[in-house]
Amino acid sequence: MVMDGLGDRAVEELGWKTPLQAARRPNLNWYAENGANGLVDMIGPGIRPGSDTSHLAILGYDPRKVYTGRGPFEAAGTGVVGKKGDVAFRCNFATVDKNMLVADRRAGRIKEPDTTELVTAFDHLMIDDITITVKPATEHRAVLLLQGPGLSPHITDVDPHDEANVHEAKPMSPEAAKTAKVVNEFVRLSYQKLDAHPVNQRRKREGKPVANILLPRGGGVFPDIQPFPEKYGMSGSCIAGVSLIKGICRVCGLDIIEVEGATGGKDTDMKAKARAAIEELKRKDFVLMNVKAADITSHDGDAKAKVEVIERIDAMVGELRAGLGEEVVVAFVADHCTPIEMKDHSGDPVPLMIYCKGIVKDPVKQYDEGSAGQGSLSRIRGMDILPILIDKAGRAEKYGA
Amino acid sequence: MVMDGLGDRAVEELGWKTPLQAARRPNLNWYAENGANGLVDMIGPGIRPGSDTSHLAILGYDPRKVYTGRGPFEAAGTGVVGKKGDVAFRCNFATVDKNMLVADRRAGRIKEPDTTELVTAFDHLMIDDITITVKPATEHRAVLLLQGPGLSPHITDVDPHDEANVHEAKPMSPEAAKTAKVVNEFVRLSYQKLDAHPVNQRRKREGKPVANILLPRGGGVFPDIQPFPEKYGMSGSCIAGVSLIKGICRVCGLDIIEVEGATGGKDTDMKAKARAAIEELKRKDFVLMNVKAADITSHDGDAKAKVEVIERIDAMVGELRAGLGEEVVVAFVADHCTPIEMKDHSGDPVPLMIYCKGIVKDPVKQYDEGSAGQGSLSRIRGMDILPILIDKAGRAEKYGA
Repeated sequence: MVMDGLGDRAVEELGWKTPLQAARRPNLNWYAENGANGLVDMIGPGIRPGSDTSHLAILGYDPRKVYTGRGPFEAAGTGVVGKKGDVAFRCNFATVDKNMLVADRRAGRIKEPDTTELVTAFDHLMIDDITITVKPATEHRAVLLLQGPGLSPHITDVDPHDEANVHEAKPMSPEAAKTAKVVNEFVRLSYQKLDAHPVNQRRKREGKPVANILLPRGGGVFPDIQPFPEKYGMSGSCIAGVSLIKGICRVCGLDIIEVEGATGGKDTDMKAKARAAIEELKRKDFVLMNVKAADITSHDGDAKAKVEVIERIDAMVGELRAGLGEEVVVAFVADHCTPIEMKDHSGDPVPLMIYCKGIVKDPVKQYDEGSAGQGSLSRIRGMDILPILIDKAGRAEKYGA
Repeated sequence: MVMDGLGDRAVEELGWKTPLQAARRPNLNWYAENGANGLVDMIGPGIRPGSDTSHLAILGYDPRKVYTGRGPFEAAGTGVVGKKGDVAFRCNFATVDKNMLVADRRAGRIKEPDTTELVTAFDHLMIDDITITVKPATEHRAVLLLQGPGLSPHITDVDPHDEANVHEAKPMSPEAAKTAKVVNEFVRLSYQKLDAHPVNQRRKREGKPVANILLPRGGGVFPDIQPFPEKYGMSGSCIAGVSLIKGICRVCGLDIIEVEGATGGKDTDMKAKARAAIEELKRKDFVLMNVKAADITSHDGDAKAKVEVIERIDAMVGELRAGLGEEVVVAFVADHCTPIEMKDHSGDPVPLMIYCKGIVKDPVKQYDEGSAGQGSLSRIRGMDILPILIDKAGRAEKYGA
């Protein structure tokens, strides 16, 4: 179970405790007291991980080898999974004027069904020998998939990330020249196809910002990833509300389990997720569950809300504790710290707890950033987690005799 | 001192303590209290080491670079040490019928002097340009050494590991074709030479299974290993009862000290070993001592026997404590955990204690799997141990000025 953005720093408003330390958390603490504890650097000490790179590490894939950008994982989150070598971008629907000056980077936070209708304008589109696929994502977001020969993700962002002129994509290396040309042509076509689109004419009448351009950014190439079931000889599933996490798990070959009410938002139905995980473990060898809510409160800078969310997570952990069988190896970890003070990810290590039958207890009695360091797991890397869990489950191969 | 298979998991029969935690161990605890403690992943977190790969790591050799299979180390254990590029296999004397169906993989656990006499059938044997050496090992086991140009260990096992038909060795890569051919010819010849052998005719009369074939498995190539005295500028010896450990140390260039009564079994004379180590350290810079007994009780799944063995090991540690001079750097470690519950090696980290004059104490007061994690050595890799000991002994080279 990955508690997104759970880790934090000491907060003045909470009497210089972390939100985790300030929260009532009897179930997390039960596991800490009865399990083995430690700290994890997802990528390395002081490296600030994204949720994407950290989840790859948790699944035992080396982000330095398989991660070139967020695009492919966002695309996979919407169900668009390319093959090795395909290039994907995240896009925003945005509002531009005739001079390509961005008036609104989110086109008034346009969402479905408008976005769903707008993307049909790109059906069956090819630019030169490259097949184009556009799919809507959450709210004003979309993904762009390029498929064909000679692609590279190494181009500059079209999205100016500000109310400025739309950038021209530039190749960052010679072999990306073709991709830059295709992307620039796609952006030009998107203005041409969207500006006059009936959906936008209606939005104009309603006084809403038009979504008359798509601005690609964060390109990445689909990696040559060994599917999880093949790599570990285990079936696996992912339970997550957030599209990016689903995307990472889908690219790694996990099955995505949809849970009613698991939105990835602060209102997500956590207990439903816990029950779904318990059920899924009857059918599968491995389940990765992501709970996003704590991260959101941190990005909002709301310490009290984070404490409340953690107390709700603890109730969910109680549900797991009651429902999981003795044979299950349980691990709790955060994918990164998101300090309230920073409103963004930090490179601080995160607390890890592992519990299973026969685990050797250590002196740690509480699950938090300050206690975990006294545990017997010491300080490990994100990529070490899965080999340890596989060994605890009695599924590891022996190296030597 | 390497306590083979010492580490474990919490055992219900011992009130959810590990055998080490359940054992009375005043001497081991004295060292823990007065030394520095930590946990060791011999290869990496969650990786289940063999005794061979872990001992290589303890001696500071990277198993990923020097280990291709158990054969060469088993061969060296019997005194057969090849040169770089020579290929060795473990073999069983077995009983087969005319159709090459294995009736008994161990030929009724045949042993010397029958095996010693049988292997003379292979004296001065060559197959093509390959020199063949066969030497008996413990009980029904033997080793096969191939010496000559163009050899590779990458062939499939001849031993079917079951009462099935003898397998034909197949090359797993093109450059192993010659080796596969030689091994298949050797197996054919072994049947021809052994089936009619006077020893087997006598065994038939006595109603014992004949040892009429040799079945190779676990091939490996002798690595290009820098001898220990050259690598570290130190003389070194090994005290071990088990042939495989002797073989590893012999390949690494340590002298093998035979101790009367040090059998490698549960009945091994531990105090004699301790006294031999104390004596040997008067002549040598480094001694690796392996005590096998705890591992055997784990493979038997006998928790109470393991506790008893650990208490005997503790008495041996008392002997060391009384007899070792102040200038000796002492380290206790296990080569891997062998949980009673698994009856096989696990990837759990093992406790390490280092004691010498001037060592900085840490809060750890007991030598066990749960306490070691609170020590100042934290969590390190097997290959880190020897550089630390060399530094504590004041023998390390400075890196920089």
